[in-house]
Amino acid sequence: MNTKKPTIAIDMDGVLADVESHYIAYYYQEYGVRIPPSALQGKPESEGFPDKTAVRRFLQMPGFFSTVPVMEDAVETVRYLMDHFDVYIVSAAMEFPFSLFEKREWLQQYFPFISWKKIIFCGDKSRIDTDYMIDDHCKNLDFCKGKPILFHASHNIDIDRHQRVHNWQEVRSLLEKEIGIPC
Amino acid sequence: MNTKKPTIAIDMDGVLADVESHYIAYYYQEYGVRIPPSALQGKPESEGFPDKTAVRRFLQMPGFFSTVPVMEDAVETVRYLMDHFDVYIVSAAMEFPFSLFEKREWLQQYFPFISWKKIIFCGDKSRIDTDYMIDDHCKNLDFCKGKPILFHASHNIDIDRHQRVHNWQEVRSLLEKEIGIPC
Repeated sequence: MNTKKPTIAIDMDGVLADVESHYIAYYYQEYGVRIPPSALQGKPESEGFPDKTAVRRFLQMPGFFSTVPVMEDAVETVRYLMDHFDVYIVSAAMEFPFSLFEKREWLQQYFPFISWKKIIFCGDKSRIDTDYMIDDHCKNLDFCKGKPILFHASHNIDIDRHQRVHNWQEVRSLLEKEIGIPC
Repeated sequence: MNTKKPTIAIDMDGVLADVESHYIAYYYQEYGVRIPPSALQGKPESEGFPDKTAVRRFLQMPGFFSTVPVMEDAVETVRYLMDHFDVYIVSAAMEFPFSLFEKREWLQQYFPFISWKKIIFCGDKSRIDTDYMIDDHCKNLDFCKGKPILFHASHNIDIDRHQRVHNWQEVRSLLEKEIGIPC
Protein backbone atom coordinates (compact mmCIF):
# COMPACT_ATOMS: atom_id res chain seq x y z
CA MET A 1 0.00 0.00 0.00
CA ASN A 2 1.14 3.52 -0.81
CA THR A 3 2.52 5.75 1.90
CA LYS A 4 0.88 9.08 1.25
CA LYS A 5 3.27 11.91 0.51
CA PRO A 6 2.55 15.35 1.97
CA THR A 7 0.85 17.62 -0.55
CA ILE A 8 2.19 21.00 -1.72
CA ALA A 9 0.51 23.72 -3.77
CA ILE A 10 3.10 25.67 -5.75
CA ASP A 11 2.16 29.01 -7.28
CA MET A 12 3.30 30.00 -10.79
CA ASP A 13 3.68 33.79 -11.16
CA GLY A 14 6.45 35.06 -8.88
CA VAL A 15 7.35 31.53 -7.74
CA LEU A 16 7.92 29.22 -10.73
CA ALA A 17 7.80 32.06 -13.26
CA ASP A 18 9.90 35.20 -12.90
CA VAL A 19 7.16 37.71 -13.72
CA GLU A 20 9.04 40.60 -12.08
CA SER A 21 11.88 40.45 -14.62
CA HIS A 22 9.29 39.99 -17.33
CA TYR A 23 7.40 43.16 -16.32
CA ILE A 24 10.68 45.07 -16.43
CA ALA A 25 11.54 43.65 -19.86
CA TYR A 26 8.09 44.42 -21.23
CA TYR A 27 8.19 47.90 -19.79
CA TYR A 28 11.51 48.57 -21.46
CA GLN A 29 10.25 47.21 -24.76
CA GLU A 30 7.06 49.29 -24.65
CA TYR A 31 8.28 52.53 -23.06
CA GLY A 32 12.04 52.49 -23.70
CA VAL A 33 12.64 53.00 -19.96
CA ARG A 34 14.65 50.50 -17.92
CA ILE A 35 13.15 50.30 -14.43
CA PRO A 36 15.65 49.03 -11.82
CA PRO A 37 14.38 46.18 -9.59
CA SER A 38 15.00 48.47 -6.60
CA ALA A 39 12.15 50.73 -7.78
CA LEU A 40 9.69 47.87 -7.18
CA GLN A 41 10.63 47.23 -3.55
CA GLY A 42 7.75 47.26 -1.09
CA LYS A 43 5.12 48.31 -3.63
CA PRO A 44 2.19 46.45 -5.19
CA GLU A 45 3.36 45.00 -8.50
CA SER A 46 1.89 47.73 -10.71
CA GLU A 47 2.92 50.67 -8.52
CA GLY A 48 6.69 50.51 -9.08
CA PHE A 49 6.35 51.51 -12.72
CA PRO A 50 5.86 55.13 -13.84
CA ASP A 51 2.76 54.12 -15.83
CA LYS A 52 0.63 52.37 -13.21
CA THR A 53 -1.64 50.84 -15.86
CA ALA A 54 1.22 49.00 -17.59
CA VAL A 55 1.35 45.76 -15.58
CA ARG A 56 -2.36 45.07 -15.87
CA ARG A 57 -2.15 45.68 -19.59
CA PHE A 58 0.82 43.33 -19.96
CA LEU A 59 -1.15 40.60 -18.14
CA GLN A 60 -3.85 40.83 -20.80
CA MET A 61 -1.47 40.73 -23.77
CA PRO A 62 -1.35 37.48 -25.74
CA GLY A 63 2.16 36.07 -25.42
CA PHE A 64 2.98 37.52 -22.02
CA PHE A 65 2.59 34.29 -20.09
CA SER A 66 4.07 32.04 -22.73
CA THR A 67 7.34 34.00 -22.75
CA VAL A 68 7.94 34.56 -19.03
CA PRO A 69 11.33 33.22 -17.88
CA VAL A 70 11.45 30.33 -15.44
CA MET A 71 12.73 31.09 -11.93
CA GLU A 72 16.30 30.01 -11.19
CA ASP A 73 16.60 26.46 -9.80
CA ALA A 74 12.83 25.95 -9.98
CA VAL A 75 12.86 23.09 -12.50
CA GLU A 76 15.46 20.95 -10.71
CA THR A 77 14.01 21.63 -7.28
CA VAL A 78 10.45 20.80 -8.21
CA ARG A 79 11.62 17.61 -9.89
CA TYR A 80 13.53 16.68 -6.70
CA LEU A 81 10.61 17.58 -4.42
CA MET A 82 8.32 15.26 -6.37
CA ASP A 83 10.22 12.30 -4.91
CA HIS A 84 9.07 13.31 -1.44
CA PHE A 85 5.91 15.37 -1.94
CA ASP A 86 2.69 15.17 -3.91
CA VAL A 87 3.22 18.37 -5.90
CA TYR A 88 0.33 20.44 -7.31
CA ILE A 89 0.75 23.58 -9.39
CA VAL A 90 -1.92 26.04 -8.31
CA SER A 91 -2.20 29.28 -10.26
CA ALA A 92 -4.80 32.04 -9.96
CA ALA A 93 -5.15 32.21 -13.74
CA MET A 94 -8.88 32.69 -14.11
CA GLU A 95 -8.95 36.50 -14.20
CA PHE A 96 -7.13 36.51 -17.54
CA PRO A 97 -8.77 33.95 -19.83
CA PHE A 98 -6.02 34.17 -22.45
CA SER A 99 -3.47 33.12 -19.86
CA LEU A 100 -5.09 29.71 -19.37
CA PHE A 101 -3.79 28.07 -22.50
CA GLU A 102 -0.43 29.86 -22.34
CA LYS A 103 0.17 28.81 -18.75
CA ARG A 104 -0.69 25.23 -19.56
CA GLU A 105 1.76 25.29 -22.51
CA TRP A 106 4.45 27.01 -20.41
CA LEU A 107 4.24 24.26 -17.80
CA GLN A 108 4.47 21.67 -20.55
CA GLN A 109 7.62 23.40 -21.84
CA TYR A 110 9.51 23.78 -18.56
CA PHE A 111 7.93 21.12 -16.34
CA PRO A 112 6.92 18.33 -18.74
CA PHE A 113 7.36 15.84 -15.90
CA ILE A 114 4.34 17.29 -14.06
CA SER A 115 1.15 15.47 -15.02
CA TRP A 116 -1.90 17.46 -16.15
CA LYS A 117 -3.65 15.77 -13.23
CA LYS A 118 -1.61 17.92 -10.86
CA ILE A 119 -2.37 21.33 -12.36
CA ILE A 120 -5.05 23.62 -10.93
CA PHE A 121 -6.04 26.98 -12.40
CA CYS A 122 -8.38 28.88 -10.15
CA GLY A 123 -9.75 32.25 -9.18
CA ASP A 124 -9.19 32.47 -5.47
CA LYS A 125 -7.30 29.67 -3.72
CA SER A 126 -9.63 29.31 -0.75
CA ARG A 127 -10.86 25.82 -1.73
CA ILE A 128 -7.38 24.36 -2.17
CA ASP A 129 -6.46 21.85 0.51
CA THR A 130 -2.76 20.97 0.69
CA ASP A 131 -0.29 20.44 3.53
CA TYR A 132 1.95 23.26 2.25
CA MET A 133 1.37 26.27 0.05
CA ILE A 134 4.22 28.23 -1.57
CA ASP A 135 3.08 31.61 -2.84
CA ASP A 136 4.26 35.21 -3.09
CA HIS A 137 0.87 36.71 -2.15
CA CYS A 138 -0.61 36.93 1.33
CA LYS A 139 -4.13 36.91 -0.06
CA ASN A 140 -3.49 33.25 -0.87
CA LEU A 141 -1.41 32.33 2.17
CA ASP A 142 -3.39 34.02 4.93
CA PHE A 143 -6.27 31.56 4.73
CA CYS A 144 -4.59 28.48 3.31
CA LYS A 145 -5.36 25.22 5.02
CA GLY A 146 -1.78 23.98 5.27
CA LYS A 147 1.53 25.57 6.24
CA PRO A 148 2.11 28.82 4.32
CA ILE A 149 5.52 29.56 2.79
CA LEU A 150 6.09 33.06 1.42
CA PHE A 151 8.27 33.19 -1.69
CA HIS A 152 10.27 36.41 -1.68
CA ALA A 153 9.24 39.11 -4.18
CA SER A 154 9.77 42.85 -4.32
CA HIS A 155 6.11 43.48 -3.59
CA ASN A 156 6.10 41.41 -0.37
CA ILE A 157 9.29 42.54 1.41
CA ASP A 158 7.33 44.16 4.26
CA ILE A 159 5.37 41.02 5.12
CA ASP A 160 6.58 39.28 8.26
CA ARG A 161 3.71 37.02 9.22
CA HIS A 162 4.75 34.01 7.12
CA GLN A 163 7.89 31.92 6.85
CA ARG A 164 9.90 33.47 4.02
CA VAL A 165 12.09 31.75 1.42
CA HIS A 166 14.27 33.82 -0.92
CA ASN A 167 14.85 31.32 -3.68
CA TRP A 168 14.35 27.69 -4.67
CA GLN A 169 17.41 26.48 -2.77
CA GLU A 170 15.81 27.79 0.40
CA VAL A 171 12.54 26.06 -0.55
CA ARG A 172 14.44 22.79 -0.79
CA SER A 173 16.22 23.26 2.55
CA LEU A 174 13.06 24.22 4.36
CA LEU A 175 11.04 21.31 3.01
CA GLU A 176 13.85 18.83 3.67
CA LYS A 177 13.83 19.94 7.30
CA GLU A 178 10.03 19.64 7.41
CA ILE A 179 10.10 15.97 6.47
CA GLY A 180 13.34 15.13 8.25
CA ILE A 181 15.76 14.69 5.34
CA PRO A 182 19.31 15.57 6.45
CA CYS A 183 20.72 18.50 4.43
CA MET B 1 -19.72 39.96 10.17
CA ASN B 2 -20.61 37.57 7.36
CA THR B 3 -22.30 34.29 8.14
CA LYS B 4 -20.38 31.81 6.07
CA LYS B 5 -22.44 29.99 3.47
CA PRO B 6 -21.80 26.29 2.89
CA THR B 7 -19.54 25.69 -0.12
CA ILE B 8 -20.45 23.62 -3.20
CA ALA B 9 -18.26 22.41 -6.04
CA ILE B 10 -20.34 22.03 -9.21
CA ASP B 11 -18.96 20.06 -12.14
CA MET B 12 -19.38 21.26 -15.75
CA ASP B 13 -19.48 18.33 -18.23
CA GLY B 14 -22.53 16.17 -17.57
CA VAL B 15 -23.83 18.52 -14.85
CA LEU B 16 -23.98 22.12 -16.11
CA ALA B 17 -23.24 21.16 -19.70
CA ASP B 18 -25.18 18.47 -21.55
CA VAL B 19 -22.21 16.68 -23.11
CA GLU B 20 -24.19 13.50 -23.71
CA SER B 21 -26.54 15.20 -26.21
CA HIS B 22 -23.52 16.93 -27.68
CA TYR B 23 -21.68 13.63 -28.28
CA ILE B 24 -24.78 12.29 -30.03
CA ALA B 25 -25.07 15.43 -32.18
CA TYR B 26 -21.38 15.36 -33.09
CA TYR B 27 -21.56 11.67 -33.88
CA TYR B 28 -24.49 12.24 -36.21
CA GLN B 29 -22.73 15.13 -37.88
CA GLU B 30 -19.51 13.17 -38.39
CA TYR B 31 -20.81 9.66 -39.11
CA GLY B 32 -24.40 10.25 -40.28
CA VAL B 33 -25.63 7.79 -37.66
CA ARG B 34 -28.11 8.84 -34.99
CA ILE B 35 -27.28 6.96 -31.76
CA PRO B 36 -30.27 6.71 -29.40
CA PRO B 37 -29.58 7.78 -25.79
CA SER B 38 -30.60 4.27 -24.73
CA ALA B 39 -27.47 2.89 -26.44
CA LEU B 40 -25.32 4.77 -23.91
CA GLN B 41 -26.95 3.36 -20.78
CA GLY B 42 -24.58 1.80 -18.28
CA LYS B 43 -21.47 2.19 -20.43
CA PRO B 44 -18.40 4.44 -20.14
CA GLU B 45 -19.03 7.53 -22.24
CA SER B 46 -17.03 6.42 -25.27
CA GLU B 47 -18.28 2.82 -25.31
CA GLY B 48 -21.87 3.47 -26.39
CA PHE B 49 -20.84 4.64 -29.84
CA PRO B 50 -19.96 2.23 -32.66
CA ASP B 51 -16.62 4.02 -33.15
CA LYS B 52 -15.09 3.87 -29.66
CA THR B 53 -12.47 6.49 -30.54
CA ALA B 54 -15.05 9.15 -31.43
CA VAL B 55 -15.72 10.73 -28.03
CA ARG B 56 -12.08 11.25 -27.21
CA ARG B 57 -11.57 12.82 -30.60
CA PHE B 58 -14.55 15.15 -30.13
CA LEU B 59 -13.09 16.30 -26.79
CA GLN B 60 -9.97 17.43 -28.59
CA MET B 61 -11.76 19.28 -31.37
CA PRO B 62 -11.70 23.08 -31.18
CA GLY B 63 -15.27 24.29 -30.78
CA PHE B 64 -16.62 21.23 -28.98
CA PHE B 65 -16.76 22.81 -25.54
CA SER B 66 -17.89 26.22 -26.71
CA THR B 67 -20.97 24.79 -28.40
CA VAL B 68 -22.19 22.29 -25.80
CA PRO B 69 -25.81 22.96 -24.75
CA VAL B 70 -26.52 24.01 -21.19
CA MET B 71 -28.36 21.49 -19.00
CA GLU B 72 -32.06 22.18 -18.45
CA ASP B 73 -32.81 24.37 -15.40
CA ALA B 74 -29.10 24.70 -14.56
CA VAL B 75 -28.83 28.46 -15.03
CA GLU B 76 -31.83 29.40 -12.87
CA THR B 77 -31.01 26.85 -10.19
CA VAL B 78 -27.38 27.86 -9.84
CA ARG B 79 -28.41 31.49 -9.64
CA TYR B 80 -30.92 30.60 -6.90
CA LEU B 81 -28.42 28.44 -5.01
CA MET B 82 -25.94 31.31 -4.87
CA ASP B 83 -28.25 33.06 -2.39
CA HIS B 84 -27.69 30.23 0.07
CA PHE B 85 -24.38 28.63 -0.90
CA ASP B 86 -20.87 29.70 -1.82
CA VAL B 87 -20.84 28.18 -5.31
CA TYR B 88 -17.65 27.08 -7.09
CA ILE B 89 -17.49 25.65 -10.58
CA VAL B 90 -14.93 22.87 -10.59
CA SER B 91 -14.11 21.24 -13.91
CA ALA B 92 -11.48 18.64 -14.74
CA ALA B 93 -10.43 20.58 -17.83
CA MET B 94 -6.67 20.19 -17.73
CA GLU B 95 -6.38 17.06 -19.90
CA PHE B 96 -7.56 19.01 -22.95
CA PRO B 97 -5.67 22.33 -23.08
CA PHE B 98 -7.89 23.75 -25.83
CA SER B 99 -10.92 23.32 -23.60
CA LEU B 100 -9.62 25.80 -21.02
CA PHE B 101 -10.43 28.98 -22.89
CA GLU B 102 -13.63 27.57 -24.37
CA LYS B 103 -14.94 26.48 -20.98
CA ARG B 104 -14.16 29.88 -19.49
CA GLU B 105 -16.03 31.58 -22.36
CA TRP B 106 -18.93 29.15 -22.10
CA LEU B 107 -19.35 29.96 -18.42
CA GLN B 108 -19.24 33.65 -19.24
CA GLN B 109 -21.99 33.10 -21.83
CA TYR B 110 -24.41 31.07 -19.73
CA PHE B 111 -23.41 31.96 -16.16
CA PRO B 112 -22.15 35.55 -16.37
CA PHE B 113 -23.24 36.07 -12.76
CA ILE B 114 -20.52 33.67 -11.53
CA SER B 115 -17.30 35.53 -10.72
CA TRP B 116 -14.01 34.32 -12.18
CA LYS B 117 -12.92 34.01 -8.55
CA LYS B 118 -15.23 31.04 -8.18
CA ILE B 119 -14.03 29.00 -11.16
CA ILE B 120 -11.52 26.16 -10.80
CA PHE B 121 -10.11 24.12 -13.68
CA CYS B 122 -8.10 21.17 -12.48
CA GLY B 123 -6.74 17.77 -13.32
CA ASP B 124 -7.95 15.55 -10.52
CA LYS B 125 -10.29 17.01 -7.90
CA SER B 126 -8.55 15.53 -4.87
CA ARG B 127 -7.37 18.91 -3.50
CA ILE B 128 -10.79 20.56 -3.68
CA ASP B 129 -12.32 21.20 -0.29
CA THR B 130 -16.04 22.04 -0.32
CA ASP B 131 -19.00 21.03 1.82
CA TYR B 132 -20.80 19.53 -1.17
CA MET B 133 -19.67 18.22 -4.54
CA ILE B 134 -22.06 17.66 -7.45
CA ASP B 135 -20.52 15.49 -10.15
CA ASP B 136 -21.43 12.71 -12.57
CA HIS B 137 -18.20 10.76 -12.03
CA CYS B 138 -17.36 8.56 -9.06
CA LYS B 139 -13.64 9.15 -9.53
CA ASN B 140 -14.34 12.67 -8.28
CA LEU B 141 -16.99 11.86 -5.66
CA ASP B 142 -15.44 8.81 -4.01
CA PHE B 143 -12.72 10.80 -2.28
CA CYS B 144 -14.28 14.24 -2.02
CA LYS B 145 -14.02 15.97 1.32
CA GLY B 146 -17.66 17.06 1.55
CA LYS B 147 -20.98 15.37 0.85
CA PRO B 148 -21.03 13.76 -2.61
CA ILE B 149 -24.06 14.20 -4.89
CA LEU B 150 -24.16 12.08 -8.04
CA PHE B 151 -25.74 13.82 -11.04
CA HIS B 152 -27.52 11.26 -13.18
CA ALA B 153 -25.91 10.36 -16.51
CA SER B 154 -26.20 7.36 -18.81
CA HIS B 155 -22.69 6.22 -17.91
CA ASN B 156 -23.38 6.17 -14.14
CA ILE B 157 -26.78 4.42 -13.91
CA ASP B 158 -25.30 1.38 -12.13
CA ILE B 159 -23.69 3.39 -9.32
CA ASP B 160 -25.54 3.14 -6.04
CA ARG B 161 -23.02 4.34 -3.48
CA HIS B 162 -23.84 8.06 -3.70
CA GLN B 163 -27.00 10.12 -3.31
CA ARG B 164 -28.36 10.53 -6.85
CA VAL B 165 -30.14 13.52 -8.40
CA HIS B 166 -31.73 13.20 -11.84
CA ASN B 167 -31.94 16.86 -12.81
CA TRP B 168 -31.47 20.39 -11.51
CA GLN B 169 -34.89 20.51 -9.85
CA GLU B 170 -33.81 17.58 -7.71
CA VAL B 171 -30.53 19.36 -6.92
CA ARG B 172 -32.53 22.30 -5.64
CA SER B 173 -34.88 20.18 -3.51
CA LEU B 174 -32.04 18.19 -2.00
CA LEU B 175 -29.98 21.24 -1.11
CA GLU B 176 -32.98 23.09 0.28
CA LYS B 177 -33.56 20.15 2.61
CA GLU B 178 -29.87 20.15 3.57
CA ILE B 179 -29.99 23.70 4.83
CA GLY B 180 -33.55 23.59 6.16
CA ILE B 181 -35.43 25.69 3.59
CA PRO B 182 -39.05 24.50 3.36
CA CYS B 183 -39.93 23.30 -0.17
